[in-house]
Amino acid sequence: MRIAVLGTGMVGQALAGRLDELGHDVAVGTRDPVVTMARTDPDAMGTPAFGEWAAAHPSVRIASMADAVEGTDLVVNATSGAVALAALGEAGADRLAGTVVLDISNPLDFSRGFPPTLFVKDSDSLGEQIQAAFPAAKVVKSLNTLTAALMVNPRQLADGDHSVFVSGNDAEAKALVTDLLRSFGHTDVIDLGDISTCRGTEMLMPLWLRLMGTLGTGMFNIKVVR
Amino acid sequence: MRIAVLGTGMVGQALAGRLDELGHDVAVGTRDPVVTMARTDPDAMGTPAFGEWAAAHPSVRIASMADAVEGTDLVVNATSGAVALAALGEAGADRLAGTVVLDISNPLDFSRGFPPTLFVKDSDSLGEQIQAAFPAAKVVKSLNTLTAALMVNPRQLADGDHSVFVSGNDAEAKALVTDLLRSFGHTDVIDLGDISTCRGTEMLMPLWLRLMGTLGTGMFNIKVVR
Repeated sequence: MRIAVLGTGMVGQALAGRLDELGHDVAVGTRDPVVTMARTDPDAMGTPAFGEWAAAHPSVRIASMADAVEGTDLVVNATSGAVALAALGEAGADRLAGTVVLDISNPLDFSRGFPPTLFVKDSDSLGEQIQAAFPAAKVVKSLNTLTAALMVNPRQLADGDHSVFVSGNDAEAKALVTDLLRSFGHTDVIDLGDISTCRGTEMLMPLWLRLMGTLGTGMFNIKVVR
Repeated sequence: MRIAVLGTGMVGQALAGRLDELGHDVAVGTRDPVVTMARTDPDAMGTPAFGEWAAAHPSVRIASMADAVEGTDLVVNATSGAVALAALGEAGADRLAGTVVLDISNPLDFSRGFPPTLFVKDSDSLGEQIQAAFPAAKVVKSLNTLTAALMVNPRQLADGDHSVFVSGNDAEAKALVTDLLRSFGHTDVIDLGDISTCRGTEMLMPLWLRLMGTLGTGMFNIKVVR
């Protein structure tokens, strides 16, 4: 598939790298490709500078948000939640029309320190806000409940014996995302229902963050035992 | 142990019944014991009338909130979240001083229909509100992430291979609750930290409710795979 990955942080690098490895035609979208490529320092999360990553992945194209999404079959939103709507806006509502948008972002608000709170929750969600802002896009929320390394290589942990969720209004779009998740190694993909069901997965973040603190690692996931 | 269980609904019945079965000295607290015992119809959740349950459990005492908690080693708050503070207030701050309070309630607000929203979340929690309202009690939040039948008999599902959480400020109180959970059959009790960490488990409810819808049953639980 032709796939655009928006965002150059840890999640963007993980997704773009794995999709490239699986043989997809991948472009990474960023606000300003020249600035992104010129960065030499790790980001605040300790993710290596994007220029190093790009040098190690010569077949992945680096482009503006708009150029990256042009003519793609799938757009992966791997930006941080606070800038997700702006990034997709730069990509352009017209270019996103009819396209499957896999939204991985969480509405984390770090303005009051750690642990973060959620800037939208409970009676609304970031996934719904994105779907409302881009009504002709086919938004599927998924992968927002686990750490980047496990999103794309779930078999690293317990041979993949854990769960991941999809939420979205379009059945074909969810089927496309589900196939992609299986190609990553996910074995238990649970369809929660329409896009509003991602309120549940976004609100898992507070528990996830405290578990990371307790376990001392992000290399865990939840399994729905039934 | 001498244990008071506050609440006569599905959760209260499950807890009181199991504690009685395990040989504890159990009193169930209710606002008005005469009214509670006179009820003959199932409640809105389909739980059998309490009088029937009480007849089947002759060794469990039925009492007012205040009488039930008098002289107990442990108070289990199994009321619905909306009335939790009022019920504990009836039990009495003086009687709760120094006592371990296992709080199972969730801050569910059904006023806008189903799925419910949470009346406190994100930067506060019901567990914290209870601890703040009764500062001399030793509040431990637990069991609020699974259905009543699995709270007390977890080995019914996958031989107990799933997780439960504890949050609280007092290490000894958490140890007492953890021992109780193990006596029920729980094998993976995760201590998340102080009482504020129950923001995470209370905010699991939206995902839990949607999973119940998707799976068509409440007989599931999450396992933290690590």
